[in-house]
Amino acid sequence: MQAEIITIGDEILIGQVIDTNSAFLAKKLNEEGILVNQITSISDKRDHIFEALNQARDRADLIIMTGGLGPTRDDITKRTLCEYFDDDFVTDKRVLNAVKRYFESKGKQLLDVNRDQALVLKKARVAVNKLGTAPGQWIQDNDKVFISLPGVPYEMKSLMNDYFLPWIEEYFDTSFVYNKTVLTQGVGESRLMGIINKWEDSLSLDEIKLAYLPSPGKVRLRLSAVGDDEHFLKSKIDKKVRELEQLLGDIIYGYDEDTIEQVLGQLLVENKLSISTAESCTGGTIAQMLTSVPGSSRYFKGSIIAYDNLVKQELLGVKESTLTQYGAVSEQTVVEMALGVKQKLNTDFGVATSGIAGPDGGTEEKPVGTVWIAIAGKENIVSRKFLFGNDRGRNISKTALEALNRVRKEILKQTI
Amino acid sequence: MQAEIITIGDEILIGQVIDTNSAFLAKKLNEEGILVNQITSISDKRDHIFEALNQARDRADLIIMTGGLGPTRDDITKRTLCEYFDDDFVTDKRVLNAVKRYFESKGKQLLDVNRDQALVLKKARVAVNKLGTAPGQWIQDNDKVFISLPGVPYEMKSLMNDYFLPWIEEYFDTSFVYNKTVLTQGVGESRLMGIINKWEDSLSLDEIKLAYLPSPGKVRLRLSAVGDDEHFLKSKIDKKVRELEQLLGDIIYGYDEDTIEQVLGQLLVENKLSISTAESCTGGTIAQMLTSVPGSSRYFKGSIIAYDNLVKQELLGVKESTLTQYGAVSEQTVVEMALGVKQKLNTDFGVATSGIAGPDGGTEEKPVGTVWIAIAGKENIVSRKFLFGNDRGRNISKTALEALNRVRKEILKQTI
Repeated sequence: MQAEIITIGDEILIGQVIDTNSAFLAKKLNEEGILVNQITSISDKRDHIFEALNQARDRADLIIMTGGLGPTRDDITKRTLCEYFDDDFVTDKRVLNAVKRYFESKGKQLLDVNRDQALVLKKARVAVNKLGTAPGQWIQDNDKVFISLPGVPYEMKSLMNDYFLPWIEEYFDTSFVYNKTVLTQGVGESRLMGIINKWEDSLSLDEIKLAYLPSPGKVRLRLSAVGDDEHFLKSKIDKKVRELEQLLGDIIYGYDEDTIEQVLGQLLVENKLSISTAESCTGGTIAQMLTSVPGSSRYFKGSIIAYDNLVKQELLGVKESTLTQYGAVSEQTVVEMALGVKQKLNTDFGVATSGIAGPDGGTEEKPVGTVWIAIAGKENIVSRKFLFGNDRGRNISKTALEALNRVRKEILKQTI
Repeated sequence: MQAEIITIGDEILIGQVIDTNSAFLAKKLNEEGILVNQITSISDKRDHIFEALNQARDRADLIIMTGGLGPTRDDITKRTLCEYFDDDFVTDKRVLNAVKRYFESKGKQLLDVNRDQALVLKKARVAVNKLGTAPGQWIQDNDKVFISLPGVPYEMKSLMNDYFLPWIEEYFDTSFVYNKTVLTQGVGESRLMGIINKWEDSLSLDEIKLAYLPSPGKVRLRLSAVGDDEHFLKSKIDKKVRELEQLLGDIIYGYDEDTIEQVLGQLLVENKLSISTAESCTGGTIAQMLTSVPGSSRYFKGSIIAYDNLVKQELLGVKESTLTQYGAVSEQTVVEMALGVKQKLNTDFGVATSGIAGPDGGTEEKPVGTVWIAIAGKENIVSRKFLFGNDRGRNISKTALEALNRVRKEILKQTI
C-alpha cells in the first residue's frame, strides 16, 4: 500500500514557501502504515497536473493533492480534476451554507467566485472545510483513490484529521509501520558506524531499515519496519534498540522528538537540581536553549554571559592572574567561571564555556574552534577541551549541545 | 530554460525532515532567471532514481539532485548515478586531500568508507566540499546538465554558492532577475498593506512584482523584476525602494540578507557604543542573537540572565520592595534591571526584558504574552509594555527582535 503527495502551485517552486504540508501528510500516512513513495511539487498548469496524476497512479494506490483551490483565476485544480475524471460539477448545499456562514462571520460580502467554492465533482465524497471555503474531496477512480485538499496548512490539517484520515483507515487495509529514532550526541557518523557495524548487519535478518540522520553535533539513528502485526514490529525494534543502548551507552541522550534541553530539564526536575551558566563563546545560547523549555524556571536560575574579561573577573570572580597567565580560553579560566556562577547563583550545577568561535581570534596554539567546557557539580568539577571547526554558528551550537549533554551525563553518574 | 529538483532519501518521505533544501535551491535558481518546473522527493532506491531522472530530463534542461551521498550503506545516489550515466569511478585527488584534512582537523581516523567519498564519476566536473566530505558533481549528458549535491543543508548551500551557481551562470544563457527585499519590524502585514496601498498599485506600471513575507515580528517586502538590462532593472527598483523608505521610515531596519543584530552591531561600532542585556523572559536570546555576529565582542560586554527573582535582586540590584509591590513583570522592575546591568557592566546601553512567555504563569491582569522592555541609554530610559500572543517561542523571539530594534531606533534618535 503506497501513497503519493502532489502539491500544486507556484509558491513552493519559487522557493517562497517551504513545503510543510507534505511533511505533515507524510508523517500522518506513515503512522497509518502507508508508505509515501514520492512527493511531487508542480505548477498550476493543466497539462502538468494531468501528467503528475497519470504518473502517480501508476506507482501508488492513494494520491493526495494540496493547493490550487482558491477562488482566483490562477487556481485551476478543481476544474482540471473535473476534466481529468471526466465528471461534472454540482453545487454541494452543505458547502454552500458553510461558505455563507464563513463570510457572514467575517462581515464580508459573498461574491460569485466565493459561491463557486461550493461546486464539487459529482462523484466526489465531500468534506466541509470549517476553517476556510475550499472543501476537501475524495474521488475513487478505477480502484485508485484521489484526495484534493486546500493548500492553507491549518485548513488542510483540520480536514485531514477530521475526515480523510478516518476515511483512509476505513477504506484501505493498511499495514503497520513502526519507527523509532535513537538520538546520539558527540560521536560523528563514521565513528558511530564503526561501533555499530555488526549490529547494523544483524538488522536485515529482522527486515529492519536503518537511516543515519546527522546534524551539527548530533546523529539520529532511525530504525523502521513494516508489517501487519503492530505488537511484533514494536517488540523486534525495541529489542534492537536495547542492543544499541548496550553498544552506545550514554552517547544516547533521547528518542524520537526529544531535545537535549528537554531531557536534561526532566532529569533536573526529577533529581531536584538547579543549574546556572557562565557563557563566553556561546554568548547565551545555552541559557536560551534551557529556557526554551516551558517550566524551565523550576531548575534554571540564571546566567552570567561574560564576553568581556572584566565581566569574567568582576561578576564571576575569575582571578586577573588566571586570565593573564593562561588566557580566557583555558582550563583554568573556564573552571573558575563554572565555580563562580555556581556559587554566585547558588545552584547545584554551574556550566561554563570559553572558546574561539571564529571567524577571527585564532592563534597557532589556540586555533578557531578551540573550546573549553567546565561543569562544576555537587562534588566535583569536570573540564575538557574540544576542537570544533571553522564555522562560528556550528562551533557555538556544538559547544552548547556538548555542554548540556555533559551535565546530563554527570547527573546520571551521580544518581546511578 | 527550466530546471527540476530531485531530493533523494527517506527522511522527507516519512515526514521527519521538512524539505528546506528545495526552497533554497528554487529561490537561488529563480534569482538566476531559471524557472523550477517540478520538485520531486523520492526514496533511495535504484529504480526510483532512474525513473525520476528519466522523467525530469524530458521536461527540463538542468536537474539538481540532493542527498544520498553519505558514507553509509543506505546512501546509494553516487553508485546509481555511475550506472545511470554508464560511467566509471575515479579517485579525485583534491577531494581525497580535502577528506584527509577534514579528518585530521577533527583529530579523527580516516576509514576506508571515508576514503571512498573521493570516488567521483569520470566525466563529472567536481566541486570540493569544504564543510563535509561528499563532493558536488556536475555531469553533462546529451545537452542536459545534472548536478549532484549532499543533502546536509549547509554543505549543499556552500557548494551551490561557491561553485554551481557560477557554473550555471556561465553555462546557461539566462535572463536577469533583480530582487530587493526591504526588512520591516513591529508593524503587522495588514497594517503595512494599508500604509503602502497606493505605492503598491504603482508597481504594475513598472512591471515590478511585490511579495509580503511575514514571520514572527517581521514582514519582509520583496520587489522583483525580470528583463535583459541589469542596469535598468536595478534603477527602477531602487527608485521604488526610495519611495517606500519615505512611507515607512524607521519601520525599515535593513535590506536583503541583513539581520537586526548585524545592523545594530554596525551602528554600535560606528558610534563606539557598548551594550549589555538583563534578560528574564527572553532567557539569553538577545545575548545569543548579538553574539551570533562575528566581531560582536567589540560592543557586547555581557549579560545577566535573571530568571530567578533573587538573581534580579543580587546581581542586578532590583529592590526587593519593587518586586513585592509591582511584581517581576512590571515597568518598575524592568527599568531597574536595565539600569542595573548598564551600571554593573559599565556599558552605554542596558537592555532589559521581563514577561510571561507562557504557556503557564498568566493571570487576568497579566496574561501570557505580557512583556515589558526597557532600554537604559546614555541620557534617558525608555520602557514599554507589549502584549504578544500565546506561543512561548514566538513571544520570546518577538520580544528579542523588538528590544534590538528599539535600541537601533534610540541610537538613530541620538545621532541624528
